[in-house]
Amino acid sequence: MIKIGIIGAGRIGKVHCESIMSYVKGATVKTVADPFMNEDTEKWLKKNGVEYTTKDYKEILADKEIDAVLICSSTDTHAPISIEAIKAGKHVFCEKPVDHDIAKILEVKKALEGSGVKYQVGFNRRFDHNFAAVREAVKAGKIGALNVLKICSRDPAAPPVSYIKVSGGIFLDMTIHDFDMVRYLSGDEVESVFAMGGVMVDPEIGKAGDIDTAVITMRLKSGALAVIDNCRRATYGYDQRAEAFGELGQVAISNDCASNAVISDANGVCGEKPLLFFLERYMQAYVKEVSCFIDSIVNDKPVEVGIEDGLQAVVIGVAAKKSLEEGRPVKLSEIKL
Amino acid sequence: MIKIGIIGAGRIGKVHCESIMSYVKGATVKTVADPFMNEDTEKWLKKNGVEYTTKDYKEILADKEIDAVLICSSTDTHAPISIEAIKAGKHVFCEKPVDHDIAKILEVKKALEGSGVKYQVGFNRRFDHNFAAVREAVKAGKIGALNVLKICSRDPAAPPVSYIKVSGGIFLDMTIHDFDMVRYLSGDEVESVFAMGGVMVDPEIGKAGDIDTAVITMRLKSGALAVIDNCRRATYGYDQRAEAFGELGQVAISNDCASNAVISDANGVCGEKPLLFFLERYMQAYVKEVSCFIDSIVNDKPVEVGIEDGLQAVVIGVAAKKSLEEGRPVKLSEIKL
Amino acid sequence: MIKIGIIGAGRIGKVHCESIMSYVKGATVKTVADPFMNEDTEKWLKKNGVEYTTKDYKEILADKEIDAVLICSSTDTHAPISIEAIKAGKHVFCEKPVDHDIAKILEVKKALEGSGVKYQVGFNRRFDHNFAAVREAVKAGKIGALNVLKICSRDPAAPPVSYIKVSGGIFLDMTIHDFDMVRYLSGDEVESVFAMGGVMVDPEIGKAGDIDTAVITMRLKSGALAVIDNCRRATYGYDQRAEAFGELGQVAISNDCASNAVISDANGVCGEKPLLFFLERYMQAYVKEVSCFIDSIVNDKPVEVGIEDGLQAVVIGVAAKKSLEEGRPVKLSEIKL
Amino acid sequence: MIKIGIIGAGRIGKVHCESIMSYVKGATVKTVADPFMNEDTEKWLKKNGVEYTTKDYKEILADKEIDAVLICSSTDTHAPISIEAIKAGKHVFCEKPVDHDIAKILEVKKALEGSGVKYQVGFNRRFDHNFAAVREAVKAGKIGALNVLKICSRDPAAPPVSYIKVSGGIFLDMTIHDFDMVRYLSGDEVESVFAMGGVMVDPEIGKAGDIDTAVITMRLKSGALAVIDNCRRATYGYDQRAEAFGELGQVAISNDCASNAVISDANGVCGEKPLLFFLERYMQAYVKEVSCFIDSIVNDKPVEVGIEDGLQAVVIGVAAKKSLEEGRPVKLSEIKL
Repeated sequence: MIKIGIIGAGRIGKVHCESIMSYVKGATVKTVADPFMNEDTEKWLKKNGVEYTTKDYKEILADKEIDAVLICSSTDTHAPISIEAIKAGKHVFCEKPVDHDIAKILEVKKALEGSGVKYQVGFNRRFDHNFAAVREAVKAGKIGALNVLKICSRDPAAPPVSYIKVSGGIFLDMTIHDFDMVRYLSGDEVESVFAMGGVMVDPEIGKAGDIDTAVITMRLKSGALAVIDNCRRATYGYDQRAEAFGELGQVAISNDCASNAVISDANGVCGEKPLLFFLERYMQAYVKEVSCFIDSIVNDKPVEVGIEDGLQAVVIGVAAKKSLEEGRPVKLSEIKL
Repeated sequence: MIKIGIIGAGRIGKVHCESIMSYVKGATVKTVADPFMNEDTEKWLKKNGVEYTTKDYKEILADKEIDAVLICSSTDTHAPISIEAIKAGKHVFCEKPVDHDIAKILEVKKALEGSGVKYQVGFNRRFDHNFAAVREAVKAGKIGALNVLKICSRDPAAPPVSYIKVSGGIFLDMTIHDFDMVRYLSGDEVESVFAMGGVMVDPEIGKAGDIDTAVITMRLKSGALAVIDNCRRATYGYDQRAEAFGELGQVAISNDCASNAVISDANGVCGEKPLLFFLERYMQAYVKEVSCFIDSIVNDKPVEVGIEDGLQAVVIGVAAKKSLEEGRPVKLSEIKL
Repeated sequence: MIKIGIIGAGRIGKVHCESIMSYVKGATVKTVADPFMNEDTEKWLKKNGVEYTTKDYKEILADKEIDAVLICSSTDTHAPISIEAIKAGKHVFCEKPVDHDIAKILEVKKALEGSGVKYQVGFNRRFDHNFAAVREAVKAGKIGALNVLKICSRDPAAPPVSYIKVSGGIFLDMTIHDFDMVRYLSGDEVESVFAMGGVMVDPEIGKAGDIDTAVITMRLKSGALAVIDNCRRATYGYDQRAEAFGELGQVAISNDCASNAVISDANGVCGEKPLLFFLERYMQAYVKEVSCFIDSIVNDKPVEVGIEDGLQAVVIGVAAKKSLEEGRPVKLSEIKL
Repeated sequence: MIKIGIIGAGRIGKVHCESIMSYVKGATVKTVADPFMNEDTEKWLKKNGVEYTTKDYKEILADKEIDAVLICSSTDTHAPISIEAIKAGKHVFCEKPVDHDIAKILEVKKALEGSGVKYQVGFNRRFDHNFAAVREAVKAGKIGALNVLKICSRDPAAPPVSYIKVSGGIFLDMTIHDFDMVRYLSGDEVESVFAMGGVMVDPEIGKAGDIDTAVITMRLKSGALAVIDNCRRATYGYDQRAEAFGELGQVAISNDCASNAVISDANGVCGEKPLLFFLERYMQAYVKEVSCFIDSIVNDKPVEVGIEDGLQAVVIGVAAKKSLEEGRPVKLSEIKL
C-alpha cells in the first residue's frame, strides 16, 4: 500500500483525494496539507478516510511513511515544492503546469537527475479513453503518416478574472493541455507556432492582459501541421474534440455526454449537451493517471508523462505567447532553455 | 420518346407529371385526363408542357400515339382502368394499391397474361437510395441469413377522416408500403402475420372504423421474423427507418433531412427534423420509378415491381386486418386467392 | 458501515463483491459463501478485502454483525434462501429472476409482509444512465402519452447449452430484463403479450427446448403498444437500445462504446462496436444498484426495485412462453397468481 | 425561355449543359462552343438537346437570340471573354476563378459598370443545402456574434500535375472556394491571412512549385478568427465540413453520403464514405446556381454571387500565397488593387 501526501486541498487536490480513496487500488492518502486548512476541509477529508491534516506541507515531506506526494498547490509553488520533495526522496505527481517559467522547470529537471524519484506531470487527457483511441490509431498506422492534426478545446465558461491574472495567460493555463495533446497524439515535436487570438468573451479578460479566444497553428518536426482552437466560453458545455488526418485516412473523436438519449419532437432532433466541464469529463482520467503513477512506483516503471513533457508544453506555450505579441510565427528554437 | 397519358390529376398525378417533364429522360406526358379537370389544373399542366387535357380517360386509351399510361385516379378505379388499358395495348404504371379487393387484382393479373404489356405498381420506396442500400447489403450477404427485419414508418400527420373512410384502412393504405418493403428487403415471402393496434392519434379515426397506430409482427417463409410499427402522427416529421439483422450483423437506415446542420447551444445539440413527408422524402424515388418503367418499355425488360408484388402486399394487408379483427396470428394461406 | 454477506461466488457474485469493495460507499463485504468455495476464490476474495469465506451460507444468516445479504447463487435457490434471510432479519438484494415459478415468488412476497426487511431485485438496467434518461423523458412528459415502446436487446453470443437448459428459457433468462424495462420505461403494466420466435443461432438451443431469437409484442393497460426483439447472438456486440414514441415525440437511446473514435478511410466511416457485454456495459449500473440498496437500508427508504417488480417480470415471461407455445396472444390475467 | 450559349465543353461545361437541359426551368442551351469541338462531344450535346455547336465562341456572342453565356473555358480566357461578352450585351455566368490576376478581374469589373449585364461567378457552394444552413443560422443570430469559423475542405485525389502547373496554385484553385465560404458564412470580410503548408501527397506537386496540404488562419474585420484546412487527397472521399462558433453556440455541417446505411458487424459500425467528389456532392448546387442566375435575368434581380465576390476571393488567395512565401501573416491591405 503506497502512502500518499497531498499538498494543496483546493478543487483538484480534493478530486485526487477522493479518487484515490475510492478508486485507486494499492494507494491511500495518509496526509493532506494546505496553508488554509480549516474545519470544513478537515471534516471532508476525515469523511473520505484521510487520517492526518496539516497546514505545513513540510510535515508531509518529513514523514518517513509517506512514499509519494501529489502537488496540487498554486502554480508558483509547484517547482520549489517539487525540488524539496525530490530531495526528501518522495515520488512526485505534480499538477500542470510545472511552472510558467522555463528556468524553474529546468531546475526541477536537474534535481531529478540521478534521484531515482518518479516524477509525473498532471496531463490528465493522456489517460482519457477518447484521446487514447486517437493516439492508438495514429501509432498503429491506421491513418499512415500524419498530415494535419486538429484540436478543438473550449471551456464552458471563463474562470474569474482574479484567476486569469495569475494563470500565466490562456496558453500556459488552458492551451497547455492542447499543446501536450499535439505532442501525444502526433508522437512528434513542435517546430514552430503561430498564434492569433482575441478578446471575445469578456472585456475584463482583455484588461487583465489576456485573450479568451485563439487559433494556434503549428508545424511539427515531421512537416505535419497542427491547429488548435480555444475559447473560454462555449454555451453548450465543455468542447473536447480532435481529428488526426493522414495519408491513409482520419481518426476523429467527439464529445461525451451523460447519456446518448436523443429526443425528436416538433423542435428538431436533439441530444444532450457535452459533459459540463473537466471534473465530469475527465473523472476517469484522473483516476487512471494516479493509478499509473502508483503503478510506476510499485513496479519501478518509467512514468507515462514526465518532466520533459511538462517542459515541452510550456516551451510551446511561451512560443505561442511570443507569436501573439509579435504577430509572427515563432520557432521553438528561439525560446531559450 | 415514349408518350405518356396520365389518368388522374390529383396530388400524385401532378407529382408524376412534373417529374416526368423535368427529369425523366426519353419520356413526355402528352395528355392528362381527370373527370374534374378545371381551368387551374389545365393552366398548371400547360405550364409544365402538357399539350392535351381531357375529362375522359378513354381518350387517352384510344390515342394511338400514347405508349403508356400512369393510373393515378382513385383506388376503386385502378383495377377496371388497368384492364381497359391493358386491352388497349398500353403499358401501365398503376399507383398503389392496385385494389383493396384481391379478386380484382387477380382480374388484372389475368388480363396481363400474354398481353405483352408492361405493368408496374407504384411502390416508390423500392427506388429510394436508403432502402436500396439495405436491400443491396442483404442481397450481397453482408448480414448473412436474415433473422429479424424491423421497419418503422410514421406519417407526420393523419389524413382527413374523409380520406380514412375510403382508404381501405391503415394496412391497405399506409402499411402496404411497409409490407412491400418486408418482401423487398428480405427477398422472402410472408407466411403469417399478427397485428396489434389502437386509436391513439384521433378518436375520429376510430369512429371511422380504422386504427391509427399499429405494431405488426410477421414470420417469413425462411423462418425469419419481421416487425413493422406504424403511426399516423409523428410530431418530428416523416419517420422512415429500417433495420435488417442477421447472422453476420446488421444494416440500418435512418431518416433524411434537408441539411445535416447541427446546432449546439445552451439547449442541447440539435439537428433538423426529418424531411416532412413523402413528396419531400421520396421525390427522387418518384423520378426513378418512372424512369425504370420507361426503361423497361424501351428496352423490353421486366418491370421491377410487377402485379405479383401489387397482389402480395394486399394479401398481407388483408391478413393483417383479419388478425386485428380476430386477435390472433393469421396465415397468409388462410386468405383466399 | 453496512456489513454485507454475499451468497454465491460465481461471476455476478464477484462483480458485486468487487464493486462494493471498490466503489460503494458506506458498505463492506464481510463474508462470502459458496458451496464450491476453493483456494483460488478465497485468494481472490482476500485480495479484494473480504475477511471471511465459507461453504455454508447459513453462517452468513447466523452472523449478527451482517446487516444485508446479496443472493447471487443459482436461480433455483433464490426463493428459499430469500425466505431464510428474511426470517433471519437480513435485508436482501436478490439477483434476477427471483424464481422461474410464480408460486415461489409469492412465498417470498408473503415472507416479506410485515418483516421490515428491504428486498431489492437485481434489475440492473434501471440504474443505467441511458435507460434512466428515457424513463426521465417519459416521466417528465417530453413525449406526451406513450404510444409505442420499442426495445432491442441482443447478446453478443449465446451462453453454453448447459446453461440454456437450466435458464428457464429465453423469456425468463434474457427477455426478463426487457420485460422489466417495458414496465420501468412506460410506468405502466402489461395487459397481454404475443411472442414469436425461432432457433436461428444454434440448433442445439432448439434441441434443449428453447429458442434464441424472438419478437414479443405487448399491449399495456393504457392501450400503448410495446415490442421487444431479442437475439442470443449479435456479431457486433451487446445491442441495448430503446425508443419511446408518443403524442409529442420520441426519445431514443443507442449503444455505448469504449470510445467515440471514428476512423474514415478507403473502407468507409467506422466507429467502434458497442461495449462487449453486460459486465462492460452495465458496470456502473451494478455499482449504482447496490449503492441504492445500501441507501434504502441506511435511510430507511423504499427500495427502487421491489418484489412486485420481480414478480411482474416473471408473470410477463410466463405469459410470453405460453403465447409462444400456443401461437396466440395471452392476457396476463390468464396467468394464475 | 432564356437562351444560353456555353463557352467551353470540358467537364464543368458539360455539367452545366446537362443540368440546364434537364433541371433548370425557363432556360435552354442553344449553342455550345469549344475550340476542340469534336464528333463525340457534338453527339453528346445533340443527345442532350443542344441544337448548335461551334469551335468559335464569337458566334455565340454574335447570336442575337442568345441572352446569356456560361464561360467554362480555361481560366486564362475567363476575363477577356467576359469583357467581350459584356460588350456584346450578354449576361455572364463565369466559372471560378475569374482570373488569377487581380488586375484582369478589375478590368472585368470596369467593363460591367453601367452595362446592365448580370454577372455571376461560379461559387457553387453558396447554393449547397448544408452550407446554406450554416449561413442561415449565422444570419439568423442562432450563434450570436461569430467568434471562430472553421472549414475543412479536402479533395479525394490530386489532379494531374499538368493541371496543377496552370492552376494558379492551391490557394487560387482549391482554397478559393473556402475563401469564398469564409466571406459567405461569416457575412464579413477578411483582414489578414497566415498560411502554412507543405507537400505531403505527391512530391511532383512540390516540383511544380505548389503545395498540396495547407492550414490557413484569418482574422476578419469583426475580429473573429477563421481557419481553413485543405488537402489534395483524402482516402475516404470529398471532405466538406464547416463549423461556425459564436457567443451563443455553434452550427456545424458534416459530409453527405449516397445513403445513410450503417452496417454493424464483427469489424465495427460503419457508414458509407462521403460522396466522392464535387460532381456528386454539388450536383444540386450546380442546378441551383444557374437557376438563380436565370432568375436574376428574368426578374432583373441582383445576382447572388457577383464580380466583387469573384475579386475578393482572389485577393485573399494572393495574400495567402504571399504569406506562405514570406512566412508571415499578410494584411489584405498589402495587396494592390
